[in-house]
Amino acid sequence: ANEKRLQDKKFKSQAIQKRSAVRALQLMRFCSFEALLERFRQISDKGVLLFSGGPEMTRHDTDHEDLFRQESTFHYLFGVREPGYMGTLDLESGSATLFAPRLPAEYELWMGKIADVDTLQEHYGVDEVVYVDEIAAWFQRRAPTKVYIQRGRNSDSGSEVAPASFDGLSNYDVDEELLHPVVYETRARKNEEELRLLRYVNRISADAHIGMMRQARPGLMEYQLESTFAYSCHYNGGCRLLSYTPIAGSGPNSAVLHYGHAGAPNDRRLEDGDIVLCDMGCEYYCYASDITNSFPATGTFSKDQRLIFETVAAMQFAVLSSMKPGVAWVDMHELAYRVMCEKLTAAGLLVGDVDEMMAANVGGVLMPHGLGHFLGIDTHDVGGYPEGAQRDTRDGFKSLRCQRVLEPGFVLTVEPGVYFVDYSLRKAKEDPELSKFFNWDRIAEFENFGGIRLEDNVLVTDDGIENFTVAPRTVEEVEAVMRGEIADAAALMAWR
Amino acid sequence: ANEKRLQDKKFKSQAIQKRSAVRALQLMRFCSFEALLERFRQISDKGVLLFSGGPEMTRHDTDHEDLFRQESTFHYLFGVREPGYMGTLDLESGSATLFAPRLPAEYELWMGKIADVDTLQEHYGVDEVVYVDEIAAWFQRRAPTKVYIQRGRNSDSGSEVAPASFDGLSNYDVDEELLHPVVYETRARKNEEELRLLRYVNRISADAHIGMMRQARPGLMEYQLESTFAYSCHYNGGCRLLSYTPIAGSGPNSAVLHYGHAGAPNDRRLEDGDIVLCDMGCEYYCYASDITNSFPATGTFSKDQRLIFETVAAMQFAVLSSMKPGVAWVDMHELAYRVMCEKLTAAGLLVGDVDEMMAANVGGVLMPHGLGHFLGIDTHDVGGYPEGAQRDTRDGFKSLRCQRVLEPGFVLTVEPGVYFVDYSLRKAKEDPELSKFFNWDRIAEFENFGGIRLEDNVLVTDDGIENFTVAPRTVEEVEAVMRGEIADAAALMAWR
Ligand SMILES: [Mn+2]
Ligand SMILES: [Mn+2]
Repeated sequence: ANEKRLQDKKFKSQAIQKRSAVRALQLMRFCSFEALLERFRQISDKGVLLFSGGPEMTRHDTDHEDLFRQESTFHYLFGVREPGYMGTLDLESGSATLFAPRLPAEYELWMGKIADVDTLQEHYGVDEVVYVDEIAAWFQRRAPTKVYIQRGRNSDSGSEVAPASFDGLSNYDVDEELLHPVVYETRARKNEEELRLLRYVNRISADAHIGMMRQARPGLMEYQLESTFAYSCHYNGGCRLLSYTPIAGSGPNSAVLHYGHAGAPNDRRLEDGDIVLCDMGCEYYCYASDITNSFPATGTFSKDQRLIFETVAAMQFAVLSSMKPGVAWVDMHELAYRVMCEKLTAAGLLVGDVDEMMAANVGGVLMPHGLGHFLGIDTHDVGGYPEGAQRDTRDGFKSLRCQRVLEPGFVLTVEPGVYFVDYSLRKAKEDPELSKFFNWDRIAEFENFGGIRLEDNVLVTDDGIENFTVAPRTVEEVEAVMRGEIADAAALMAWR
Repeated sequence: ANEKRLQDKKFKSQAIQKRSAVRALQLMRFCSFEALLERFRQISDKGVLLFSGGPEMTRHDTDHEDLFRQESTFHYLFGVREPGYMGTLDLESGSATLFAPRLPAEYELWMGKIADVDTLQEHYGVDEVVYVDEIAAWFQRRAPTKVYIQRGRNSDSGSEVAPASFDGLSNYDVDEELLHPVVYETRARKNEEELRLLRYVNRISADAHIGMMRQARPGLMEYQLESTFAYSCHYNGGCRLLSYTPIAGSGPNSAVLHYGHAGAPNDRRLEDGDIVLCDMGCEYYCYASDITNSFPATGTFSKDQRLIFETVAAMQFAVLSSMKPGVAWVDMHELAYRVMCEKLTAAGLLVGDVDEMMAANVGGVLMPHGLGHFLGIDTHDVGGYPEGAQRDTRDGFKSLRCQRVLEPGFVLTVEPGVYFVDYSLRKAKEDPELSKFFNWDRIAEFENFGGIRLEDNVLVTDDGIENFTVAPRTVEEVEAVMRGEIADAAALMAWR
């Protein structure tokens, strides 16, 4: 599928950027309204769904205004770029109303021309725009029999949706329970317009990864990889925001799963012999990419680096080849573990029977994170744990952000890895049920190795997957990229 | 002073970055603890000052963790990079205690090695580190006669300091009033270590501005200037964060004072004949720079562009030449307006008597923002309105974030501008007291001109200022930079 898209045409970022501004907005609005209404009408077809956009924020106790990024569900439905909005969908008529803040005349001076309600209505493709300060009057006129608002928790972070509210809402019959799961179920299935955007950010991110890998060499600081990536995404793709804090872990840092945070800001210098793990993605129109590449700092794999890279590549290939509707995601996680155990047993790092290793969960020692997660407007997108889904308690499995059977329209990351982490290995060594499967002498040779992860972003189709990510996935591809022979994703496809 | 620093040595960013990691931390700790204690002891010399660091945050209702940036006062005192800390200073002994979160063993897997209390104590240069969950017990042992915590508002944004607290604090005699103004007064006067950092970020930002201006040309998107700037700061200077959302306003956008926000994300294409206004700065170790350059997209000034640029440069020069201890900041704002009125009268845009223009506040029409603000750990740094300071109500003056008489150690931006904004000009035209001073035919020729601002960052010294900012401040300098003859700040100094 990737090949076809590339043969069809050279990738036209400018064109996509232009059309996305207004047209994609209106298409999205249509697709997402329709999808949510259709699903919610199975519960009720009378009343109004009420949503609140994100508020403006200052950093701590300062005058520093954080760059506003819309709350994700509100973006999904309305695509509004500014803070302070609310919105409704009418279940009966299907009409959409935006409530915009009434801006003081002086706003023009500081922030630019003020759009009137007609301009906003046309721009956002809704049926009606009124001011937020008129919302109570609007509700009085409409007198909805029922108002549905969203209250619930994000299953990954536990953070809560801020329920929409206005002075006078309590005069209506308000339901806070039914909407939340329906929103998450709807967002879990991506529509065509969303898929376009996800393909776009994947291409921009892949090009940026490849460009960055060509620059990588011992002596660079990890943050120089980070800044090279971010620059490419913004300059070439118009992607102002990264979808998460970049991880550029070299040497031992490649095994710190969330390296790159404020306490470890990618500030180590790349050395000869390092593995470098770069987990980076940008977002466009609030749609995320989340790609990981791993490569030797020198551009040439050592024997052990090749072994681990090829193990991880085999894990990823096995999963990508097996994904299709009806397959349980937890089984894919298990499959990745099985391939890991087989490969590392063949290589002499593990010893014993693979079925017994699987029963003892050896995989959880060397890959202590989940195989992948939903991806969309959030990097860790919603819907991974529908009502009633249980979290597994085994290492690795317990970190899965998705506990579902695959369906067409799901978009997930596939990100197996193998890491040599003191913490996990210490624990395994102390546990006789696990310890016996490890060849500790051989494992000791990986003490400062770090880890390798490969991460692609894929769509579940009717009979398999479409892989959005074009990135070096063999030793030969990585080495060719780092020799400078492959300039971008299109060149990599051609090289293949 | 700038010249001397540059003659002394080539700028050694690597060296500064290395030493800053631990040594600057400890020097800062010493300087800022001492300064705060000295000032607070004039009020009381018994008891404990208690501070709270910033918390971890997720974006809205998602699993997206914002990159943590420490609360500014806590950074000033303790320099801690991670969330979840608290800290105390003992007024009697002067000893400093940090309270660190107790991290679960699994933290090592996700975030990296866990530092024990001894390592943290040495790293942060405090007298003692204990865990946050032991803070109540620590207070019981110390039994302070008084606990001072900070409660108050930021005078620019009105956002509130989150007062430090723990279970059991109410058992002590707590004062919430005295500490806040003392913290702000202390932070208003920069110590030597802070000045080093402010010089450093200014140099990195100036180099990035100059590099970006060399690339600028019609056809580029505004965000390509933004990304070029950010890349240079991070790649060359290790400055991961920008100190505020970059403004890259071209053509009419150059007169939108806070252009570049989420609703106007620097997404216009530069055209022939445009003025481009770039207000951008990075931060290092949480210290901010805030520099503005304005230039023609083509690299060559038109006659009118030259006129406005030279007017603004003259306003800036007059202020920089007059600043010294004892001078009221509001008088500098007025001086900028006076120079503007003189120049634009000479050029025929304004007509009449300059004293009368000043009385009618013509300046507030063409430069409707404040002349400058304190700069430090926050871009709009604290202390601009000490207790009792009154906000002026006239246009322009009312936007001043600083209402003080200058003292040695103050660091301010000096950022005069001239803008042709529909909103302001419409208002002026309708007001007979203002309208009579404008040559409306001539003003009409500036309809899509936008505006020009020049912004430097300066320290008030014992007898004048030290200007941290090396940026093109004449038409000739701008044109030479844009012809590619000047590569960075050092080259600009040499060119001069
Ligand atoms: Mn991921
Ligand atoms: Mn400023």
